Amino acid sequence: MDKTRHLSILGSTGSIGVNALNVVRSFPDHFKIKYLTAQTQSDLLIDQAREFKPKAVVIGDESKCSDIQGALPEVEVLAGRHGLLELSGRDDIDIVLNGIVGSAGMEPTIKSIQAGVDVALSNKESLVMAGGLINALLEEKNVKLFPVDSEHSAIWQCLVGEDPADIKRLIITGSGGPFRSMKKESFQDITVEQALNHPNWTMGRKITIDSATMMNKGLEVIEAYWLFNLPEEKIDIVIHPQSIVHSMVEFQDGSVKAQLGLPDMKIPIQYALTYPKHFPQAWEQLDLAKISSLTFEAPDLDKFVCIRLAYDALRAGGSMPVVLNVANEVAVHRFLDGEIGFTAIPEHIEKAMNTHDFIQNPDLDDILALETWAKSTR
Amino acid sequence: MDKTRHLSILGSTGSIGVNALNVVRSFPDHFKIKYLTAQTQSDLLIDQAREFKPKAVVIGDESKCSDIQGALPEVEVLAGRHGLLELSGRDDIDIVLNGIVGSAGMEPTIKSIQAGVDVALSNKESLVMAGGLINALLEEKNVKLFPVDSEHSAIWQCLVGEDPADIKRLIITGSGGPFRSMKKESFQDITVEQALNHPNWTMGRKITIDSATMMNKGLEVIEAYWLFNLPEEKIDIVIHPQSIVHSMVEFQDGSVKAQLGLPDMKIPIQYALTYPKHFPQAWEQLDLAKISSLTFEAPDLDKFVCIRLAYDALRAGGSMPVVLNVANEVAVHRFLDGEIGFTAIPEHIEKAMNTHDFIQNPDLDDILALETWAKSTR
Repeated sequence: MDKTRHLSILGSTGSIGVNALNVVRSFPDHFKIKYLTAQTQSDLLIDQAREFKPKAVVIGDESKCSDIQGALPEVEVLAGRHGLLELSGRDDIDIVLNGIVGSAGMEPTIKSIQAGVDVALSNKESLVMAGGLINALLEEKNVKLFPVDSEHSAIWQCLVGEDPADIKRLIITGSGGPFRSMKKESFQDITVEQALNHPNWTMGRKITIDSATMMNKGLEVIEAYWLFNLPEEKIDIVIHPQSIVHSMVEFQDGSVKAQLGLPDMKIPIQYALTYPKHFPQAWEQLDLAKISSLTFEAPDLDKFVCIRLAYDALRAGGSMPVVLNVANEVAVHRFLDGEIGFTAIPEHIEKAMNTHDFIQNPDLDDILALETWAKSTR
Repeated sequence: MDKTRHLSILGSTGSIGVNALNVVRSFPDHFKIKYLTAQTQSDLLIDQAREFKPKAVVIGDESKCSDIQGALPEVEVLAGRHGLLELSGRDDIDIVLNGIVGSAGMEPTIKSIQAGVDVALSNKESLVMAGGLINALLEEKNVKLFPVDSEHSAIWQCLVGEDPADIKRLIITGSGGPFRSMKKESFQDITVEQALNHPNWTMGRKITIDSATMMNKGLEVIEAYWLFNLPEEKIDIVIHPQSIVHSMVEFQDGSVKAQLGLPDMKIPIQYALTYPKHFPQAWEQLDLAKISSLTFEAPDLDKFVCIRLAYDALRAGGSMPVVLNVANEVAVHRFLDGEIGFTAIPEHIEKAMNTHDFIQNPDLDDILALETWAKSTR
């Protein structure tokens, strides 16, 4: 990488955004922050802007706009959903890192691609909801999508230099979450506190619940389908509680490649920004002799109904993954708010999937309408 | 791979050679056997020649030459060391697979490179004894070397599409052999039968003993040094009793890539012949959920003295790895013949290393003279 890359970080105050700025801080000659966006955390956004001196920032919560303008007199400040979408469409950057949580991240991804900007994508909902549209746009605009999810980054790394025609299957690993060993009968008593207590990864609340229900793996299967252009029967899940093997690719000759690392999003975030290079970092080194044992088991689809629902949605195609995703968001927030129990999450999703008006080839307006409808199921 | 590749298999009746012919048999449109060579197994060589119809064969044991000529009237039959070296220097093939066991395989590798023929190298002694000469020749002749050892094939596969400058270290895995858990005090009582009983791999007798002493790993470190052009402090060994992870590469950002597979030489042999493609095979699939657990531990250099000797030889350079390798061959054969005990193997090697006349930059004549001298230590 010879020249400085100009970056936009969408969701800069979230878990992914903060890690991305740590990476940027390590390589001041390689990266320059041009844009930062946040939904509500205005204080952190101000601190980040003072350090990284972006040209513009977006605050989603419009009530905080004037505070930010006061604190950052030399920075252009945009606000609200409109501001986010306006900034996402700018083309004077080399790469945008989309670390927005949830379906709100989909439209910014599309705007960036339309602007011809490469996307480092942490927002998995973009592909889950609009994979067909996005892939068509990527081809039309000759834009590249770099996965940031640890699983998809692992697969991507395993495929460097390989011919996609040689892939036999992808093997997505999942920790199994905090309830891997719990009996199904006890699932109905799971509390929010238990579900937020992930054994390996420190992540946002929504994604942590998705790990507990294992919907996270389901969404990753759908994301992998669009990223790597493989049918669902070639995308498997294996449970790996230590979260050291981040995913694998099996080739036609039976050779399997895996990418490993300590469970820390820093590595996939940095790789998405430095690809195809591995920039040196003095992060803690993986020591397999110290870890001693890596274990693997088949996922229990009877217990983790969300995985089955995701494969069902992928097979059905069309509007089904949109509804799966948005209904899951609604159900997770209801669970987090104490309105429904843990086992009601998949029930809520399945009901939405079964009752919505199916569309075979949804366009963006259809997807947004489906999102609105699915949100109304709350 | 569009056109048929013409192959020469050196050591076709050995474990590697037989597996290579299984691969060739699977893809009759892609591979044509032009040459086969064997040391003593004339009956099997005749069977192979009848099936694969080579242009010429070599039998090392000259007393069997006329039998073979009688059985294969339409095939050119060469004999002895001279015949092997003559045939190794022919240039009317695309790739030679060198599956010869031991130091006898070194000169054929050099002859093939001098003839401008790419080499799929299973004979690790070639690089251990003459790595500097071979690398200079490869560059001069613009010839490629494809590793066949499962460990080096794994590293090679992990490096496809990567920039060698991004490598932090190589991690060579080893099963630890049959004596991994045995106390050091019991090593002096190890019998030939125990040492030949390898837990995972079916290999030749010499290599099986090298696995038991772990000299195999030491030789692999030296081989990796020449294949991947890395200093010895960037080549580590980790014990992995299940032999599923065949080796790993750690990159500068802490990302680790591993190549996995069932412990079967078919995969690396085929990959060396089909690189950069993975040709489809219906071999038994790796099922990590079934295997359940992969374990790792640090090697015990106090118990496995041969590993330390190999690192010492690599650091000393020059003639030292030549003597290490040949003295090891002598000691292993003496052990197999019941002349010395298991713990005398490293003692014999260390004595030879300490008493030989060190040469900093041995040429081929020096290496052959060192080989003769080290063989005389018997």
